[in-house]
Amino acid sequence: MAKQPLIQRLCVIGVGLIGGSLARALREQGAVAEVIGSGRNERNLRAAVRLGVVDRYDTDPTRAVAGADVVVIAVPLGAIEPVLRAIVPHLAPEAVVTDVGSAKGSVVADVERIYGRIPPYFVPGHPIAGTEQSGVEASFATLFQKRRVILTPLAETDAAAHRLIRKMWELTGAEVVDMGVRHHDAVLAATSHLPHMLAYTLVDTLAQMDDRAEIFRYAAGGFRDFTRIASSDPRMWHDICVANREQLLEMIALFAADLERLAAAIRHDERDAILTLFQRAKRARDNLYLD
Amino acid sequence: MAKQPLIQRLCVIGVGLIGGSLARALREQGAVAEVIGSGRNERNLRAAVRLGVVDRYDTDPTRAVAGADVVVIAVPLGAIEPVLRAIVPHLAPEAVVTDVGSAKGSVVADVERIYGRIPPYFVPGHPIAGTEQSGVEASFATLFQKRRVILTPLAETDAAAHRLIRKMWELTGAEVVDMGVRHHDAVLAATSHLPHMLAYTLVDTLAQMDDRAEIFRYAAGGFRDFTRIASSDPRMWHDICVANREQLLEMIALFAADLERLAAAIRHDERDAILTLFQRAKRARDNLYLD
Repeated sequence: MAKQPLIQRLCVIGVGLIGGSLARALREQGAVAEVIGSGRNERNLRAAVRLGVVDRYDTDPTRAVAGADVVVIAVPLGAIEPVLRAIVPHLAPEAVVTDVGSAKGSVVADVERIYGRIPPYFVPGHPIAGTEQSGVEASFATLFQKRRVILTPLAETDAAAHRLIRKMWELTGAEVVDMGVRHHDAVLAATSHLPHMLAYTLVDTLAQMDDRAEIFRYAAGGFRDFTRIASSDPRMWHDICVANREQLLEMIALFAADLERLAAAIRHDERDAILTLFQRAKRARDNLYLD
Repeated sequence: MAKQPLIQRLCVIGVGLIGGSLARALREQGAVAEVIGSGRNERNLRAAVRLGVVDRYDTDPTRAVAGADVVVIAVPLGAIEPVLRAIVPHLAPEAVVTDVGSAKGSVVADVERIYGRIPPYFVPGHPIAGTEQSGVEASFATLFQKRRVILTPLAETDAAAHRLIRKMWELTGAEVVDMGVRHHDAVLAATSHLPHMLAYTLVDTLAQMDDRAEIFRYAAGGFRDFTRIASSDPRMWHDICVANREQLLEMIALFAADLERLAAAIRHDERDAILTLFQRAKRARDNLYLD
């Protein structure tokens, strides 16, 4: 007897790098019987069908969610509220809904604003994975392997809904962890949102210089790695800035104060202060990744 | 008849990643008959002999340079002056001397201080290559392939000495370009020295946070690339900060002002300002590297 797939009908709203990779991974695992895509970019949705990522699509999310037992909202953070608002009346009675937003406080606030409460079938989630690419053509089934997925279930969240979304992500090869909403946003502000701001700003600072053409010509390997994340999708990152504003601004302020302290140490030739900082950072980085 | 090697006796003072890779590359090309290593770390020098990077070594640079037709000084910037001061009376009459320092203004100033003038046989150089590793064991013959090497010859520099050092680097597979001293330091402050300060500071900002262990646990792929350069040698980078202080501080100030502008735009939810910055940076990055 064939194994029963975990999900009968999966609806992915926003079939981009994350949504597309999730669908691919679940298909490869035989964990889903049918995948319906939705989104605003019909060219991208046609590509999703052609690439076998989804079985069919409907640009209207209210129709796309019909009969789906799991709905994954994988659109930029700023688009989650209108999507949720539109689909709520059309969800199947047993549907479980999750998202993949890089900030969780704003998503929970959106959900509360729409429902007046947190519905038990909504499980906020965030896969810590991605590349600087966008769109279904950049998606691949192994994107989540050995990566972490953070779920931020709330007191109201149904235990079975939580288990289902946990199982779904585990099938992609990810390690799933639960975390509080605020803590998630603090950790991500530090490790992802701040570095993206630094990379965008650095490239932009250089791009505004008179001799930018020559400057970029001499940018070597380190610069290439350092600025890769500045190729990420601007709209998505605008939304993250807005969604996690308070914690991101706090991290930017912490960083700016530390950078000013380093500049002062360089200005006054404080050898020990400079060396201590570099050594402490090197030790932290070397212990973090043994590469 | 066997081809005459470009260099009869090469002396490399500081047989680390750069000095070791240069020796390996020239040996592979049959461009050097004999390589003498020197440096302060005898364990590293013994490894250099064992690995076949040098034929022999002498921890005393005044003896190591004896009879060498080319002397490459590949020590941290802060050690160039004492090394030069020591070896000058012991150089062979026809010796050509070059360095690999990441800042050139300070090296030229060192040379002027020692000689009272710029000697014609000194050719300041800087290979734009490297990894975050250090030591001869990290060296490899292909490090400079398709990389740029910048030479900053001065009015006083002998044309034949300049040609010899150019030819030496070309044989490693590098593209050699000439540049003015000040311009070199400005370009490097922007593309290398500033990014290293940002990476060191970011890792250090996070390493000082209360929940650093958890924070680093969730640092994903982008963070890994972004902070790789924070594993670079602290002593070497301290010296670069001091050597290129003015231009580096100028770049830090430019960057800090741009970061503050971004923070203000996020604080006041200025959608257009945020999007414009991210789009401009993404366009510059995407055009820079087509990966």
